[in-house]
Order: sequence, then C-alpha cells, then structure tokens
Amino acid sequence: MTAAAPALRQAHATLAVATRGRGLVEITAPVADAVARSGIRDGLATLFVRHTSASLVVQENADPAVRADLERFFARLVPDGDALFRHRDEGPDDMPAHVRAALTAVQLSIPVVDGRLALGAWQGIYLWEHRLRPHRREVAVHLLGT
Amino acid sequence: MTAAAPALRQAHATLAVATRGRGLVEITAPVADAVARSGIRDGLATLFVRHTSASLVVQENADPAVRADLERFFARLVPDGDALFRHRDEGPDDMPAHVRAALTAVQLSIPVVDGRLALGAWQGIYLWEHRLRPHRREVAVHLLGT
Amino acid sequence: MTAAAPALRQAHATLAVATRGRGLVEITAPVADAVARSGIRDGLATLFVRHTSASLVVQENADPAVRADLERFFARLVPDGDALFRHRDEGPDDMPAHVRAALTAVQLSIPVVDGRLALGAWQGIYLWEHRLRPHRREVAVHLLGT
Repeated sequence: MTAAAPALRQAHATLAVATRGRGLVEITAPVADAVARSGIRDGLATLFVRHTSASLVVQENADPAVRADLERFFARLVPDGDALFRHRDEGPDDMPAHVRAALTAVQLSIPVVDGRLALGAWQGIYLWEHRLRPHRREVAVHLLGT
Repeated sequence: MTAAAPALRQAHATLAVATRGRGLVEITAPVADAVARSGIRDGLATLFVRHTSASLVVQENADPAVRADLERFFARLVPDGDALFRHRDEGPDDMPAHVRAALTAVQLSIPVVDGRLALGAWQGIYLWEHRLRPHRREVAVHLLGT
Repeated sequence: MTAAAPALRQAHATLAVATRGRGLVEITAPVADAVARSGIRDGLATLFVRHTSASLVVQENADPAVRADLERFFARLVPDGDALFRHRDEGPDDMPAHVRAALTAVQLSIPVVDGRLALGAWQGIYLWEHRLRPHRREVAVHLLGT
C-alpha cells in the first residue's frame, strides 16, 4: 500500500467516439492519452458514457473473436424487433439498445498507478455501440490524483 | 481539459427512496439536490444502493414506454417463481430480485461539471425496485470536488 | 450531509484472491482490511478486477442458496460450450466467462463512512470466478478520503 503525496487534484475531459454502427470500439489509447494530458500519475480515472444506447465494457484485447462472440450473444439475448417491445420510435434496434445498455455498464472507474491505467495484461476498454447505424458518442472523463 | 482548483473536498449524503413495488423510480432530482447542497461544482458524484434486491440504472427519461419495456424484458429473462431457484424465503420474486441486481448496477459515478451532473440530454438516473412490494431504499452518496 | 476535513489523500492496494474454480468468493473482509490499513475513515473505496473472466458483485451474505442460485441462473443463461461461440481457445467455459463478466461488473466504488464500508446489513462483496478451474485473481484498490 502506498500513501500518496498530499496535493490531490482533479481534471475533466471529454472523449468523442465515432462509431461505425453496432459493435465494440476500443478506447484504451484515448483514455490513456487523457490521463497523460492531465499530468496525473497516481489516482483514479472515471469514464461515463452520456447516452442510453451505448455502454462501456472492459474485455479481452487479444482475439477479435471475443468481441464478435459478445456481439452474437447479445444479439440472441436481446433480439432486434422483439414483439415484446412497444418503444420502437427509432426502429427495431432502438429498445434492444436500451436493454443492452442496462445489462452492461455506463460507467467505469480504473485506478491509475505510476502513470498507467491499472488494466490487466489482456484488458482493453471499449465503447459498445448498440445501435445499427453509426453515431458520434461522448464519454465524460473525470481524473483524480497526484 | 480543465485543471481544477486545488482545494478538493468531499461530502457524504444518504437518499431515502420510497418505492411502490417493482419498477423504476427516477432519482435524478434528489441526486442533483444532494450535489447542490454540498456546494461542489466540479468533481464526481458516486451513488451506492445499500440493498441486494434493488439497483441503479441510467436510462432514457423521455418515453415512459422505455421503462415499461425494460421491466417486461427483465420479467421474461428472470421469471418470478422459476423452478431453478431454491432460495424462496421471501416469495417467488425474492431470488429474481437478486439476479436482476447482479445483471444491472449497484453503483454509479457521474462527473459534476459547472454545478451539474454530466448526464446526456436524454439520461435520467433511476433506482430500480426489483421486489413486488413497496420498500424504503437507501442510496449512499459520496461527493468529491471543488 | 457531512463536510469532511480538507486534507484529502489517497492510497493504492492490491488484493490477491485465490479462487477454487467457478463461484463467488467473499472479499468483504480483505477490502475492509485494506481500508483500515490506509487509515482512511471517510471517503470512497474503488475496486477494479484486472481480468476479463472474473467480476465483482455485491450480493446477499446470509443464505448461501442465493449464491448457488445466481450460479445456476448464469450457467443456464450463458451455457458452457454453446455452439454460438467461436472463441474456444481455453475450452468450453472460456467465452461464457467473458460474457458473464460483461453482464456483471468489473469495478465497484463503495463509500467509507466512520471507518466502515457503507454496505447494507445484508450486503457482501464477492469476486465471481467464471472459469471452471482455480485461478489467482488480482483486484486493484484505490482509496480516497480523510
């Protein structure tokens, strides 16, 4: 356990993420860049996705088949155009996108240690676009530390 | 990116939420009130629900059909009285409530920027009651910032 | 609401968790120990699991049948060896472990009040091992407060 220096400070940032329709977009590098730009080397980075039809996941960054399988599993679990859903204002993928967001996470906090996100060796941070069409998504970032 | 002033401080609060049985209860306004009362204008608000049969979600605050559809989806995914479940001490909705809590979130952290929660235009914060009967729920709130 | 003393500080810790294969391992006591060792009595504890096939849940700590039912529900929802999955490098439980991690949480933040985690009366913190075989898991801990 390391007691950190007393001068705690914070910074805000916003990440803009252009998606190409449904699927996982890796954002590990832009998050690491936001940490680096803040100058914070020890602390906590918090990400919050400002949408109800996209979410955040930490997943394996090695085999791309993992992301494809995740996508296939969620497509089966929450089928587009399911007759159960009454909210269809924006099409058959509208309500499934909200359900997928509820089943995953809209927020993540990751410790920053020695200037690096404390991710495991195989962990990447992904924004998960749940709508079929491309969107421009925003992730609010809060950085805390020394 | 904005480097904030140095005098970081924190505050605790507790929200009491009366539920009317299963369903989503919007708590955006009481959370915003807790932020305002703390005097913190830039930082991070963290909510933690102190129960294992209720949870927190950020969802669309416009069309109420979204919340009804979410409810219907989870009722189908985790049926009350499922023969799979052995833990039935408090009735057929007891174990489904625990499963729903595991599938959603018990904690949320949301940046506070310029005195406002950094929610997207269509995002509301909801406590999700998973039991059929009304309950009094507690949400612990931690506020950090300047 | 309590305005805390100004001298906010932080500490990092790492918890090593030995699992015995698939199932929930309670880590409430080691988390409370990390808080106590940091000397922080009011603030926020954040846990981040550094793996993509294990996760964190807050669940009932009374009846062990709750954990068994959770396990049974997820085994049915995400079956081992499902023909849907192409990623099978490490066996039939490999991809289901990633899906279970996406459906639950890799991170938790819990307020610390008067030297104690602000858990509800029936809440315990669990690391959920999703692989069939035992693993050594790491949880990064960030502690903030006074």
